[in-house]
Formats: sequence, C-alpha cells, structure tokens
Amino acid sequence: MARILDGNAIAAQIRAEIKSEVARLPITPGLATVLIGDNPASATYVRNKRKACAEVGIASFGYELPADVTESEVLTLLEELAQRDDVHGILVQLPLPSHLDQSRILQAIPPHKDVDGFHPANLGVLGLKGKQPLFAPCTPQGCIELLQRSGVTIAGKHAVVLGRSAIVGLPTALMLLARDATVTICHSKTANLSAVVRQGEIVIAAIGKPCFVTADMIQPGAVVVDVGINRVDAPDQPRGYRLVGDVDFAGVSAVASAITPVPGGVGPMTIAMLLSNTLLAAQRTLAKQKLLEQDSNL
Amino acid sequence: MARILDGNAIAAQIRAEIKSEVARLPITPGLATVLIGDNPASATYVRNKRKACAEVGIASFGYELPADVTESEVLTLLEELAQRDDVHGILVQLPLPSHLDQSRILQAIPPHKDVDGFHPANLGVLGLKGKQPLFAPCTPQGCIELLQRSGVTIAGKHAVVLGRSAIVGLPTALMLLARDATVTICHSKTANLSAVVRQGEIVIAAIGKPCFVTADMIQPGAVVVDVGINRVDAPDQPRGYRLVGDVDFAGVSAVASAITPVPGGVGPMTIAMLLSNTLLAAQRTLAKQKLLEQDSNL
Repeated sequence: MARILDGNAIAAQIRAEIKSEVARLPITPGLATVLIGDNPASATYVRNKRKACAEVGIASFGYELPADVTESEVLTLLEELAQRDDVHGILVQLPLPSHLDQSRILQAIPPHKDVDGFHPANLGVLGLKGKQPLFAPCTPQGCIELLQRSGVTIAGKHAVVLGRSAIVGLPTALMLLARDATVTICHSKTANLSAVVRQGEIVIAAIGKPCFVTADMIQPGAVVVDVGINRVDAPDQPRGYRLVGDVDFAGVSAVASAITPVPGGVGPMTIAMLLSNTLLAAQRTLAKQKLLEQDSNL
Repeated sequence: MARILDGNAIAAQIRAEIKSEVARLPITPGLATVLIGDNPASATYVRNKRKACAEVGIASFGYELPADVTESEVLTLLEELAQRDDVHGILVQLPLPSHLDQSRILQAIPPHKDVDGFHPANLGVLGLKGKQPLFAPCTPQGCIELLQRSGVTIAGKHAVVLGRSAIVGLPTALMLLARDATVTICHSKTANLSAVVRQGEIVIAAIGKPCFVTADMIQPGAVVVDVGINRVDAPDQPRGYRLVGDVDFAGVSAVASAITPVPGGVGPMTIAMLLSNTLLAAQRTLAKQKLLEQDSNL
C-alpha cells in the first residue's frame, strides 16, 4: 500500500515555522483578500485563508465585492491596496465573474505584492533555469514542497502533469522542469493518455475530473499528487456532497509508492504557501526599509 | 528515406509574402539591430538579418557597440530606439558579453517592439491556451511554421523537445502545447534519454551538441526538426569548418518520415519570422494611428 503524503501534517509544520518567523518580525505581515460575487466555494476558500492568517499572526484585510462590480471599481481597490504600507500581499480569489477581465485584474496587482504568483512577471519566469519569480504560485509550490519535505527526489525523474491550466498544471510542470525533472504535459487532446501517464515516476493530476486517474494508468511505485478537489453528490453526508480528487484513491494507492489524499493533501499546502509568500513579502519590505535607512545615514 | 523539410524554400515563400505586404504599406517597417562586441557568429547573424530586411523592403538601422560598453549606455540606446517612430522592431543580438545583465537589457525593449519575443510579457504567455503574445520568439515560431506549412499535424501528437533554453527549447515546447500536442521536455539530466526521445512523433532537437540525436533515438516515421547549428572542424572546407545540426542527419533520415537539414532548415525560418514580426509591428502602429485619427475626427 502506498505511503500517504500527509499534507495536513506537513502544512502544520510549515505554519508553525511561519508563526515563529512572524513573531520575530517588528511588523505585522498583512494580506488583503478580495472576494467578488457569491460563489460558495470561493467564499469557503477565502474564509479558510483568513483563518489560517490569523493563526500564524498575519493580519488579513477582507474585501467583498458584489458580483456586478465594475472592472474599474476593482482596479481602483487594487490601486489603493497597492499603495498601502500595511498590506504586503494581495489576493484576488478566482474564478471571477465572467464580465471581468481576469488578466487585466491580475496584472493590476504589483508583482511585489502578488502572493498568488499569477502576475505574468512572476508566472513568466517559471521554468527558466537560474531565474526565480518573486513569488511562485501557491498550489504548484505546495506540490513541490510536499514532495521535497516527503523526501521524494525530483531531479532526473520523469514527471507527468495531467492538465495545463495557467494556474496549476502549466506552472507545476515548469517548476518541476526547473528542478531537473523530465516533464511531460498531457491534457484532454492527448492520445493514448493511459500509456503516457503510466510513464510518470511522479504524476501530478490537475484536471478537475473526479476519480479520473485509475490504477491501470499508474506505474508500480509511482508517486501520485492529486490536485483535484471535486464535489460529488453524497446524500448520506451532512452537506449532501463529499470531496474527491482527480485520482481514484483506493485503486491507485494499491500500485503507487506514495499518494496524497483528498482532502488533506495539496489543499492545506496551498494555504501554507500563501502564508509563506505573505511572510516573504513582509520580509522583503523590511529589508528594503533597512537599505533605505542605511542610505539616509550615509 | 525521410522527406526533407526545406526551410530555404518555405522561408523564401514567406519572404515573398512579406515583401508584397510591405510594398502595400504606406510606411516603411523599420528594424533596429544592436550588436555588442565582436563575436564573429553574432556578426554574421546580424549581417544576414539586415540583408534579409533589405530584400523585402524593411529598413534596418544597425548599431554596433564595443564589447566593453556599459549597461547604462546600452539602456540609453534602447530608450532612444523605443521612442523613435521609424523603428518598429528592436533586436539585441544574443549572447551578450558577460558583464551585461541580459534580462535587464531584454526587458528594456518595450513589448510592442520586441520582435524577438524575449520580453517576459511576451515569453510569459506562451503555452497559455487562448492567450497570444504580441510576438512569438523567432526560432520556435519558425519551427511551428515549418511544420504547419509542411502539412505536419501538431494537435494530438506526442512532441519531444530536447533542450530547455529560455529562447528555444522551452518556448518551442510551450507553443507546441498551446497547439494541443502532448509535450515532453528533456535535457541533460534526463534518465533513459533515448527511450524518452523515441516516444516523440515530433522531435525538436535544440541542445547545441553536434550529431547528438542518432537513429536509435528516433521512432520510425517521426518528424525531426533540427534547431542546432554547430561548427565542426573540417580542414578540407574553405572556411576550415562546416555546420552540422544536433541530429545525425544521415542516420536519422533513414528512419524519420521527415527531417529538416542543417543548414537550410530552421535557420532561414528564424530570419523569416523576424521579418514577419517586424511587419506585424509596423502594421500594428498603422492600425493604432488609424484609431487615433478616427477619434480626433469625432
């Protein structure tokens, strides 16, 4: 049976590290969260992120805008947040209502406050050896961190990434590549998908299809990271649904050497990386202040 | 025997198309080339690019800076070129002398004049479905165009890209991905390289190692695109060297269904794409002027 890569435990350890770092800082790191519209899943995500901030001593400033907010109202808010000294990171929860231009809005977050790592100036340098974005996107970074803290070697491995979205699949592939994996990216147009995925010594599933990856698609001993979070009907559950990943956990865990569960795998890592990026943003602000003070003391 | 994908012939056709487009424009498209130092290969490339401009009616403005030029002198020149109305495209020939910060210099070219496609705002959106950079980088775009004009289907194919450089391997992989190929990126740290490359229905070789890709690494019927241009000693040649690709042409052409020669494959396509991007830049300038005139007539 596969070893469980316990995202809850690893994320808890990271949060503890962040908490002690935050306590040592002379300023309080601040994260602004912007939630637009009334998507219940988005509301839950933002609530969990704010709660996680509070637990490690990061201040969070919540903004909730109606679904029919205009783009210029959103941009005005982002400009204001860009200026504020107590806001080190800015997060706009996706997806956005369809009348808003996602790329224009994400580009309005200054790269040095882009703790989600979605600005083209940050996303665009992923995969380039010897370059580092100011912030790596949280879910891909969470996958990498989960692998590394679990002792899984990435360099030289064949990693197969299922899914090519701009916020998960593609950046995860690029981050694995920068860490010397051989990387295959496959997707809905891939022929012989099972055979392609079966080549993965590391498999990242990020396609948003419940239980899509089955045991026959996984080579014995592979490490499987399940990024999917899908709601499936479950009348016996108190909420009427349960969460499952993109991987058929029961079947795949019989052939894989290690696997992340859903929930409790990548999800908590994503939030931990958001906290980590916000801490990093605050630390950079301090370092910059210090340099400026030194200059003025000359 | 493999069909030869004749880059010279296809590039000639593209240049003829560009020439007739240029002749119809009310302005002369202009390309500024910046050559720094005295690398003989770079000097040859720039000379060929300027010659190609002249042949299609594009004005080229050549700047040659000494190897010990300061970064701020380069940046000042680029600022000046960014302002000039007769310069629609700016090309800084790579590689740069090591004391210059390549990424700072490339970022000083405004994205709308970045005809090499190396600005992060252009490179960074490659691979994202439904997004287009202002300019795609010339060599990757040349590979894609060569495949498409040769009738090679990309969608659904397994493409293997050997090499992950920021200017060839990685952007080519991302452009193939955006065109619905399943893409594997491999490199010097890849284990079982032969077996990985042998999966490619399309193989792009971009590693800069003469004759590295041999017949045993190629599956029967694959399409092989050779991006390498390597000088190897050849005392019997007038210049004392000859140019070979990254692919063992003789051996591989016995198993592949189609292959690009070196020289005469990707090389001329790269220059054709530079001309195409410069034309595009001039056309965009005109379109913008037209819009502004309409506005002022209101």
